[in-house]
Amino acid sequence: MGAATFAGHGSGPARQDASSPSDGPEAVEILERTRMSVDPELRRAVQSLPSSMRRVARYHFGWERADGAPAAGNAGKAIRPALVLAAVEALGGRESAAVRAAAAVELVHNFTLLHDDVMDRDATRRHRPTAWTVFGVPDAILAGDALQALALRLLAEDPHPASAAASARLASCVVELCAGQHTDTAMEERRPEDVTLPEVLAMAEAKTGALLGCACALGALYAGAGEEEVEALDAFGREAGLAFQLIDDVIGIWGDPSRTGKPAGADLIARKKSLPVVAALASGTPEAHELAALYGEPYEEGELERTALVVERAGGRDWAQVQAADRMARAMHELSRAVPDPEAAGGLLALAEFVTRRSS
Amino acid sequence: MGAATFAGHGSGPARQDASSPSDGPEAVEILERTRMSVDPELRRAVQSLPSSMRRVARYHFGWERADGAPAAGNAGKAIRPALVLAAVEALGGRESAAVRAAAAVELVHNFTLLHDDVMDRDATRRHRPTAWTVFGVPDAILAGDALQALALRLLAEDPHPASAAASARLASCVVELCAGQHTDTAMEERRPEDVTLPEVLAMAEAKTGALLGCACALGALYAGAGEEEVEALDAFGREAGLAFQLIDDVIGIWGDPSRTGKPAGADLIARKKSLPVVAALASGTPEAHELAALYGEPYEEGELERTALVVERAGGRDWAQVQAADRMARAMHELSRAVPDPEAAGGLLALAEFVTRRSS
Repeated sequence: MGAATFAGHGSGPARQDASSPSDGPEAVEILERTRMSVDPELRRAVQSLPSSMRRVARYHFGWERADGAPAAGNAGKAIRPALVLAAVEALGGRESAAVRAAAAVELVHNFTLLHDDVMDRDATRRHRPTAWTVFGVPDAILAGDALQALALRLLAEDPHPASAAASARLASCVVELCAGQHTDTAMEERRPEDVTLPEVLAMAEAKTGALLGCACALGALYAGAGEEEVEALDAFGREAGLAFQLIDDVIGIWGDPSRTGKPAGADLIARKKSLPVVAALASGTPEAHELAALYGEPYEEGELERTALVVERAGGRDWAQVQAADRMARAMHELSRAVPDPEAAGGLLALAEFVTRRSS
Repeated sequence: MGAATFAGHGSGPARQDASSPSDGPEAVEILERTRMSVDPELRRAVQSLPSSMRRVARYHFGWERADGAPAAGNAGKAIRPALVLAAVEALGGRESAAVRAAAAVELVHNFTLLHDDVMDRDATRRHRPTAWTVFGVPDAILAGDALQALALRLLAEDPHPASAAASARLASCVVELCAGQHTDTAMEERRPEDVTLPEVLAMAEAKTGALLGCACALGALYAGAGEEEVEALDAFGREAGLAFQLIDDVIGIWGDPSRTGKPAGADLIARKKSLPVVAALASGTPEAHELAALYGEPYEEGELERTALVVERAGGRDWAQVQAADRMARAMHELSRAVPDPEAAGGLLALAEFVTRRSS
């Protein structure tokens, strides 16, 4: 379906800024503008926390060092709040009315990061030690709990007529994120060759697609859109989110550590069943067997390059890139249902292309 | 102030059922009725979770065994939802309209129990192994996250005109509960003699009082009460909550393990800085020094009786009981501000007396 349109015709919304450089200047501008408008709301929300929780949250967002000194800050790319604001605009609403909703989505995202890092024992995020390594597991759990509460409080206090529906939708999304993270951690316990591609795709949709979809749906709700448009925007975000995850997993293996903020090949060293790895394992190639054997044993010094090469030769890298393109095409199709005017859809398109083209 | 009224006069609301046996038959009836009306709402909410989260939640609530077989169930006393419903009634509202709010409060309570057990490494709750010991830490964290989301979704989906205000209030309460739990875990790291009574009282208010206060305030909101009444009900619940915690701490040392569901003297063995212990340490008595010495070393087999006796001789037990009575008197005073009619206040009074008289 959409895949052919996207890959073959070179026309329609997916191609509208084909002439622009691949680093997506329009998206960069949207993200920058989003941070300018959402950051004060986020900081205000975090400022309202009791000092014990505030400290952990400000560190996590990169606004403070562990000792409480101010930091230049790298709170992430703000893709999710940007999707909220771009979706409002695409459906004819006012961006300024949805700033709280955008902040709420970013708070939920960061609550899940705090908890995921505890569960996965990840020691590094955004080039810095994770919160639990600095403040301990209890404080990281509590700060995450508080950020979830803060997100839902922001919406509950928002007088906008869509806030209750947005709140219910965001809470449902949290439940889906939890289920996705459960599947992810449960998968870690299983033998690599027993994990199937549909399973790992469903997990990625729950873990990543759900919140990107929710961000777009909240934007639609805040624009006063009807149910069909809200659902189409949700589907757009989900598909774009899957494309994002596929590219993220590719970067996790072949990305430049100085740009990703993670050690080189961290996913392979941790024996993570990322999408390209599972595709490689399911490829039926001789390299699939070699990969299963490698993944069956703990990582040994020096085998990183070989493992990455095996995943690539088994077709894992190509599969992930083709899948990402296919998901993007589906995303475009969903978007065109709700927003037929390519100009109105411009912001969402630019963001979707940005997240699947980025190299870090 | 109120303390004299309560302890001295033997009249007024606090004494209205002084002739009833101390197990509070009226409260027992209210709790039973609450479970009958709130349980279906709770079960429906939990049923809506994805199977991975539902399994942990159903086990935690005592509805299922670890293997998924149905269990007779002991989901707790339902004091918080009962306070919501009794507060609605006290302020002239309809109980049936506040069942969702009551379920939301109970979901929040259980989310905090799941997370607290992880942080405190508590292995037993309600006579059963805690969820994290059965399903692992990640699933216990995720199920807690999902229950918080479920609570706030219940309110967001509730068409009642008070639901947004209730939602904001419940979310604020979650933040306070987190801060209270932070103080509690941070206290564990400190030397027993460095912890002050005002600190440990403030911690108990945040950890226990806040949610009981919030339950009452939500009931008032659902009855359409004004701001002053809502705040008075919150204060009533907070003071009753402190009384409850004081008694709970007394039971944690001197209670009957077959009724408390916890091993005998577990709090002393774990060197918990509970309210009677901190009061004993701050007493300036010779026993205070002995207790500090005992608490300064890990627990040794056989010293349990001696430790309990030292806390008692240092006045920790008496202090806690007098404090509990004082807090109850303050609770009565707050309640009488919002609900001057003792008959209307009857349910709330019965519940407050019940929680501070219970022996398990």
